[in-house]
Amino acid sequence: MKPFIKSIVLENDKLLIIDQRFLPHEEKIIELKDERDVFEAISTLAVRGAPAIGITAAYGVYISLLKNKNLDKTQFKQKAIDIIQYLKKSRPTAYDLFYALYRMEKIIEGEKNVSDWLLDLKKEALKIHNEDLERSERISINGLNVIPYGAKILTHCNTGGLATGGNGTALSIVFKAFQEKRDIFVYVDETRPLLQGARLTAWELLRVGVPCKLICDSMAAYLMAKGWIDLVLVGADRIALNGDFANKIGTYSLAVLAHYHGIPFYTVAPYSTFDFNIDNGDSIPIEERNPSEVKRFGNCVTAPESVDAYNPAFDVTPHRLLTGIITEAGIIYPPFKENILALNREKENGFN
Amino acid sequence: MKPFIKSIVLENDKLLIIDQRFLPHEEKIIELKDERDVFEAISTLAVRGAPAIGITAAYGVYISLLKNKNLDKTQFKQKAIDIIQYLKKSRPTAYDLFYALYRMEKIIEGEKNVSDWLLDLKKEALKIHNEDLERSERISINGLNVIPYGAKILTHCNTGGLATGGNGTALSIVFKAFQEKRDIFVYVDETRPLLQGARLTAWELLRVGVPCKLICDSMAAYLMAKGWIDLVLVGADRIALNGDFANKIGTYSLAVLAHYHGIPFYTVAPYSTFDFNIDNGDSIPIEERNPSEVKRFGNCVTAPESVDAYNPAFDVTPHRLLTGIITEAGIIYPPFKENILALNREKENGFN
Repeated sequence: MKPFIKSIVLENDKLLIIDQRFLPHEEKIIELKDERDVFEAISTLAVRGAPAIGITAAYGVYISLLKNKNLDKTQFKQKAIDIIQYLKKSRPTAYDLFYALYRMEKIIEGEKNVSDWLLDLKKEALKIHNEDLERSERISINGLNVIPYGAKILTHCNTGGLATGGNGTALSIVFKAFQEKRDIFVYVDETRPLLQGARLTAWELLRVGVPCKLICDSMAAYLMAKGWIDLVLVGADRIALNGDFANKIGTYSLAVLAHYHGIPFYTVAPYSTFDFNIDNGDSIPIEERNPSEVKRFGNCVTAPESVDAYNPAFDVTPHRLLTGIITEAGIIYPPFKENILALNREKENGFN
Repeated sequence: MKPFIKSIVLENDKLLIIDQRFLPHEEKIIELKDERDVFEAISTLAVRGAPAIGITAAYGVYISLLKNKNLDKTQFKQKAIDIIQYLKKSRPTAYDLFYALYRMEKIIEGEKNVSDWLLDLKKEALKIHNEDLERSERISINGLNVIPYGAKILTHCNTGGLATGGNGTALSIVFKAFQEKRDIFVYVDETRPLLQGARLTAWELLRVGVPCKLICDSMAAYLMAKGWIDLVLVGADRIALNGDFANKIGTYSLAVLAHYHGIPFYTVAPYSTFDFNIDNGDSIPIEERNPSEVKRFGNCVTAPESVDAYNPAFDVTPHRLLTGIITEAGIIYPPFKENILALNREKENGFN
């Protein structure tokens, strides 16, 4: 399954991304020229989605250092470290960002010529991107197993080609099921406050031709009660060792609702999303964004200017509400901790 | 407790309302001159909230018939019946509309002079309005019993002065608790798609000075998990004999979430909201509004123009998720059917 959308491209050493802030009205490509551009693109959600953030950050390290190729070895190495540290601060929750930057950091260890370092950094960034592409495909194949014929699927936020290097995480399964003629139908949560569902997921599904309907987040329970939802597929920004996971605000709400209605609830995420340093969801840092996002959409003010608002960007869903975690290596079922640890051992033994 | 906001006024036989479509940015008063104006104001949500719809419809019958005072008795009576039938179609879910129009219909029974009929219609409309004002006050006093000191209250949609003739249903309890210095804090669900929470409830709370924070509907579960919500207060548009009730879309979602987190969940409604002809929630008609409301905020388009959307305006919450129904006559607890029937018997015996 080729990617339907190329949201991040390295072309002649230029880093080009679709600026997602302009979707669905305009498909605008922008160039990120240095670490400040990359930081801004990530923090303002011009690029978003855990895997896409990781890929952009990796490329970002490379293109920023390319501008510093005339530094001597010591200065170059220090610059690399500074840029990596700086980019780590662009968003706090998604683990892929730290995973990608960790891998870029590894390249800069030891001693090399600046030109060799640059070559290796480029290779590693491309590798991170390509791995994500392959993972997306493997995730879609694994995920297909949980999609019955005629399934009505509920999604939240955007987990498609815009959020990753390939066709997405949760949405790659939707695309695969559509391609395999499983006669699916997708309900798209609009995903307030930044409307990634309405703006991005609806745009991707329309582009590919997947039958879908947009709903407000508060309507999901009503659809579940009517028996219109067969399963819920969401992404993840960070998964703890016990299976607790952080994802876009509203995910926890869906998990409780699916649990109450006896509806299977899966999170879909590549290996890079697991944080083996964190025992459970309580330790996942939750980004709080500017309250003004809750009081407006784009330039439209929706509330009195002087009212306070609260704007957590993510929530944590406890593993007990989770049916399974769909990864490129297969589907992880309870007991999650045991099975996630097994995955980690495979990884240590050279898996992936 | 005097009304903080006068959303509907009959002044020198002119029917004036705050056009809620312009809030919170502009407090615009418009005059409704005939039944077409009234129909449009109700169907486009210039006036909304179950009790406010009933009051406006009652006044609407009067001011529309005032324009027909030169008709002969037979023609006048027919006109009255036509107008009442016409206004019944302005919105399908809220029971107060039908209750108010039923009472106006009763006035027109029998034989009278046109001028006497007009006098009686005006009296009845004013009575419906005044009763609502008094009920609002009694509801607030009854509701105070469930508000602990320091309570953090979650609300949905708008149930305040804009939605009724007095200070509201659920929100009147909030205002009373604030006045009684119970040190409350209110979380306001923005209430997509039409943002009655963000636009109207936030505006009312700010005006009165009640400490509050606006949240997106999808954040409620996260706040509950954090232990930040002590109780949920919502309104009702129609309550069936067994306690099942229709209210703004998103209410059922909150009810399931509150149930899961062990948080008390009350609906607050005057007697006029009970539909004794309906055994349970399955028979309550649910209005589906234009899907375009889900694809925009005011003039801001939030989704691709060509995407389908689904827009149920209400949902039904089953009585088993309900802690109690706060009415002007007291708080109704389970078993709901038995206790609601007892209320009906009191009514038949002259209660109210």
